[in-house]
Amino acid sequence: MTTLAHTTMMRREIQEQPEAVARTLDALLPLVPEVRRLGADAHTVVFFARGSSDNAAVYGRYLLEVHAGRLAALGAPSVLTHYEAHVDLRGALVVVASQSGETQEILDTARRARSYGARIIAITNNPHAGLAREADLAMVTQAGKEHAVPATKSHVTQLAAMAVLGAALGPPDVPFDAALRRTPEALSAMLALDGQAAEVAGRLQVAGKLVVSGRGFVMSTALEIALKFEETCYITTLALSSADLQHGPIAVVERGTPLIVIAAQDGPMLKGATSLAELAAGRGSQVIGIGGDQAFAAACHARLPGPKLPEALAPLALAVPGQLLAEALARLLKIDPDSPRSLSKVTQTH
Amino acid sequence: MTTLAHTTMMRREIQEQPEAVARTLDALLPLVPEVRRLGADAHTVVFFARGSSDNAAVYGRYLLEVHAGRLAALGAPSVLTHYEAHVDLRGALVVVASQSGETQEILDTARRARSYGARIIAITNNPHAGLAREADLAMVTQAGKEHAVPATKSHVTQLAAMAVLGAALGPPDVPFDAALRRTPEALSAMLALDGQAAEVAGRLQVAGKLVVSGRGFVMSTALEIALKFEETCYITTLALSSADLQHGPIAVVERGTPLIVIAAQDGPMLKGATSLAELAAGRGSQVIGIGGDQAFAAACHARLPGPKLPEALAPLALAVPGQLLAEALARLLKIDPDSPRSLSKVTQTH
Repeated sequence: MTTLAHTTMMRREIQEQPEAVARTLDALLPLVPEVRRLGADAHTVVFFARGSSDNAAVYGRYLLEVHAGRLAALGAPSVLTHYEAHVDLRGALVVVASQSGETQEILDTARRARSYGARIIAITNNPHAGLAREADLAMVTQAGKEHAVPATKSHVTQLAAMAVLGAALGPPDVPFDAALRRTPEALSAMLALDGQAAEVAGRLQVAGKLVVSGRGFVMSTALEIALKFEETCYITTLALSSADLQHGPIAVVERGTPLIVIAAQDGPMLKGATSLAELAAGRGSQVIGIGGDQAFAAACHARLPGPKLPEALAPLALAVPGQLLAEALARLLKIDPDSPRSLSKVTQTH
Repeated sequence: MTTLAHTTMMRREIQEQPEAVARTLDALLPLVPEVRRLGADAHTVVFFARGSSDNAAVYGRYLLEVHAGRLAALGAPSVLTHYEAHVDLRGALVVVASQSGETQEILDTARRARSYGARIIAITNNPHAGLAREADLAMVTQAGKEHAVPATKSHVTQLAAMAVLGAALGPPDVPFDAALRRTPEALSAMLALDGQAAEVAGRLQVAGKLVVSGRGFVMSTALEIALKFEETCYITTLALSSADLQHGPIAVVERGTPLIVIAAQDGPMLKGATSLAELAAGRGSQVIGIGGDQAFAAACHARLPGPKLPEALAPLALAVPGQLLAEALARLLKIDPDSPRSLSKVTQTH
């Protein structure tokens, strides 16, 4: 294990995110007409991805349905690769997201989806990726090289690409487009939470397990934050929508299992997030909030504020407090967050 | 808490499953021509459900794609209910599954999906359900009244309904249809595992957390078994596809976190399940297998055999060893599995 410098690579890459998103928007917004043309007649938009990219796809799926009114789905790569099923994809737009754009499973998925009639958009951080060659259009994110193994800026720039996709396939929406252009500055504001995140991480230090909950747009954030805790802190972390949590597994939230609740500052899910925080606190769980409003903050034992962005764009910046929390906790636990055990940068799924 | 009789209601309902599935097949197979007609031109089949019904939908989705070659998706009810998004569902077949058929969220979802252009099939255990009235066709499962709060026979009969859906929307497949009719007897054979399940449960007694893994068709089983452990034993249980597990969260599997791996007796996922069992055992995890073949069994510390059914139908019977395991563990932990805390039979999601 390397020496645990106060500034890890992961932390530096978290801090690079506002610029990475700004560069990505500059690169991708000019593609809007081309995306619109490719998706004009699509009856369904299907996302294929793994890991952090799949968490970005969860956001893409809500955005496409809620903001753009398009039926959207999360595809299972194994249907095409392992089962070699010939799924009728005529008339579908398939969006394949992969940071490296070189994972064999993802390349095979794109190739097969195309041969079954879909149009393909690739979202990748690598302009020379094999994935870009399998696609009708490549949306190349501008995260720059990511050195730490846990994805941070590559994930957040994928979220930005999803937002551009949503803008392209939805109806004209001037406030949405304006807010999208404000996301780099909203991301910057989140970086100031660094010290606060380190304090809150102390509350999680003795927990052997965690539950992270979100719903709707911020489910994507909950999944991504859970993945960061697992990768960098080796903590068993359940990510559950508050709906599913209250539909059964709430039984596992009790004294000793901290609950992290994610909420945007507005939208129809905020009230439920506040109720969930109250419910879990009443059961003796340590409740950490990320985002939300004042009432939400009051329902939590500790809370990191979220961005001043509408719910449909909040995930682009809400990931940051969670990343900071996971990175800080890893350091408290004397784990090097840059190189967690049993992970490599390009994952090959067999 | 009631006295923990050796035979709980949950256990009795587990034992009723072969007959419940036989009755359900008798009731639903005659609907095949009607299902085929409703779905003939559908470009996408979208499933909406919650909890155990959603786990059945995960099976339905793989079956529709792999067996029937139809694009299938798991819908998020909140898109229609909370966000009130007008998603273009013209040309889609929407399948809404709910045991009670009375959950308000699910009724609203069906009503809205229909108003946005979808055809609706309801899968419910209640012939008088409001849900049946919102649908073009109701597939009424024949579980009979379920008394224990954790779903067992209502879930497995939903799986049977999904299999009928797959048979109706796929190409003619005589071996599949024949195997489907054999599922009640395959379920019966699983009940003999009762004593073995109680022994294996002893190995899990001290674990505060669990990971359950499956992939492809049996991902549905993994999700359902994880839910049973959470509901009846209050154990934090991660359900992860082996692909996603190896893509990051494998870091959480270590000495002290048992891993339950689910596998069918055949199919393209079996080899990977065996490798995962070996990998986790090598990391010091206690590995419990359910299903698989001899090589798979050899890779596990303990293993409950699965049914003699092809992979595409295995989930109908593979759920049983997991149900038995959760029920036995609940009794060991002195929890009444029939009435877990904080759960009621008809869940209203807000």
